[in-house]
Amino acid sequence: MKAEVILSPGEYVHHSLRGATAVVIDVFRFTTTVLTALEAGLDRFYPVAEVEEAWALKEANPRVKLAGERQSLKIPGFDFGNSPLEHYGKSYSGGDLVCSTTNGTRAIQAAKGAEEVVLASLRSAEAVAAYLRRSAGEIVILPAGVDGKFSLEDTWCAGLILSKLDVEELGDGAKTALLLWEQIDRSQLVQSAHGRRLQNLGLHADLEFCLEIDASPGLVLWDQFTGWGALSR
Amino acid sequence: MKAEVILSPGEYVHHSLRGATAVVIDVFRFTTTVLTALEAGLDRFYPVAEVEEAWALKEANPRVKLAGERQSLKIPGFDFGNSPLEHYGKSYSGGDLVCSTTNGTRAIQAAKGAEEVVLASLRSAEAVAAYLRRSAGEIVILPAGVDGKFSLEDTWCAGLILSKLDVEELGDGAKTALLLWEQIDRSQLVQSAHGRRLQNLGLHADLEFCLEIDASPGLVLWDQFTGWGALSR
Repeated sequence: MKAEVILSPGEYVHHSLRGATAVVIDVFRFTTTVLTALEAGLDRFYPVAEVEEAWALKEANPRVKLAGERQSLKIPGFDFGNSPLEHYGKSYSGGDLVCSTTNGTRAIQAAKGAEEVVLASLRSAEAVAAYLRRSAGEIVILPAGVDGKFSLEDTWCAGLILSKLDVEELGDGAKTALLLWEQIDRSQLVQSAHGRRLQNLGLHADLEFCLEIDASPGLVLWDQFTGWGALSR
Repeated sequence: MKAEVILSPGEYVHHSLRGATAVVIDVFRFTTTVLTALEAGLDRFYPVAEVEEAWALKEANPRVKLAGERQSLKIPGFDFGNSPLEHYGKSYSGGDLVCSTTNGTRAIQAAKGAEEVVLASLRSAEAVAAYLRRSAGEIVILPAGVDGKFSLEDTWCAGLILSKLDVEELGDGAKTALLLWEQIDRSQLVQSAHGRRLQNLGLHADLEFCLEIDASPGLVLWDQFTGWGALSR
């Protein structure tokens, strides 16, 4: 098994994903939120980059729910923002979610071209690692970053997942991610650039929830050909 | 003093350099080579992104020397490639160098907009740190990377320089660079993606020379308004 971690969104374009399993991570908060929404009973999610695209999908199919944020705040008129706590403990009877978030959605779009696309978060780290252990190939992890920049918490999560795998060949970014996970305590992640922003918005409960490790058995896969993602059954 | 390290060239555009001292690092080999050429007696260097621009400058002023590489190899017709050993031990009586290298030149161009631009390498780490200690402001370090990607050796050098400073506020990238420097032994840098490429080209002596720490007292500054750089006198 070989693995690389693309440390910065601006670098996605320079890496080949062909034949690889791509793992998209947006701990604060997109991949955590999608996992939680699906575990609460929603059937599928559809990430879009632009708000206009979400509205167009809603017009075509009024039953879809819209979720998304800009600058960490709920988009006006949308059904949901980007908080996992909007979904946690709920019990939906199916339904589809169209999502647009600043960082996570774009990272998913960047993963097109990979053999398959997995969404990961701290809560699903072990579930994702178990899935990756069964695939013997190449893994490329895409931390979603924050506003186009390196994100400490997403890269730390990449390191955590790598620590659970038996990788023979680590790229320079993967080595860096592993070191971050080894040397930085989880409690420090709330002090990352993104963590501080969410703290300033009073989203302490979201941060705490997103930082729980291995709390969920759910594995989220995204199908780049249909554009829809769902829990693996 | 506050400091950030931009871990990936693709991220330059997302960081503001206004008011900051920018430090450009291309250990393998551009900033090492420029330092060595200037210490051998050349007066100035002028980085350009494109080969055509270098030829045009030569046509306008035939006395300038051209230096540069593509894919680590000397550009055909140029006076020099990108090896510090082409200059080490030489004694030039002045002269100007026009340089075009894949990563380093582009990082320098990206540093436009900073208050001032310093070039750093492992050989000049202490000289650069001494200069930065005298400036009390904000430092943004730009590892040049390799082909648009994160570079382990440049980021390690950023960590080394930071370790010599008293920084109160470290950005997430700066924390990561410091960790890399603390946890990765210098001997491992020849195994970075870029290091392996140069090894494959048989450039072992270049690698050894570039990896010498604090071997030079020279401080290279680049003036973004004239486009010329030189040793600080």
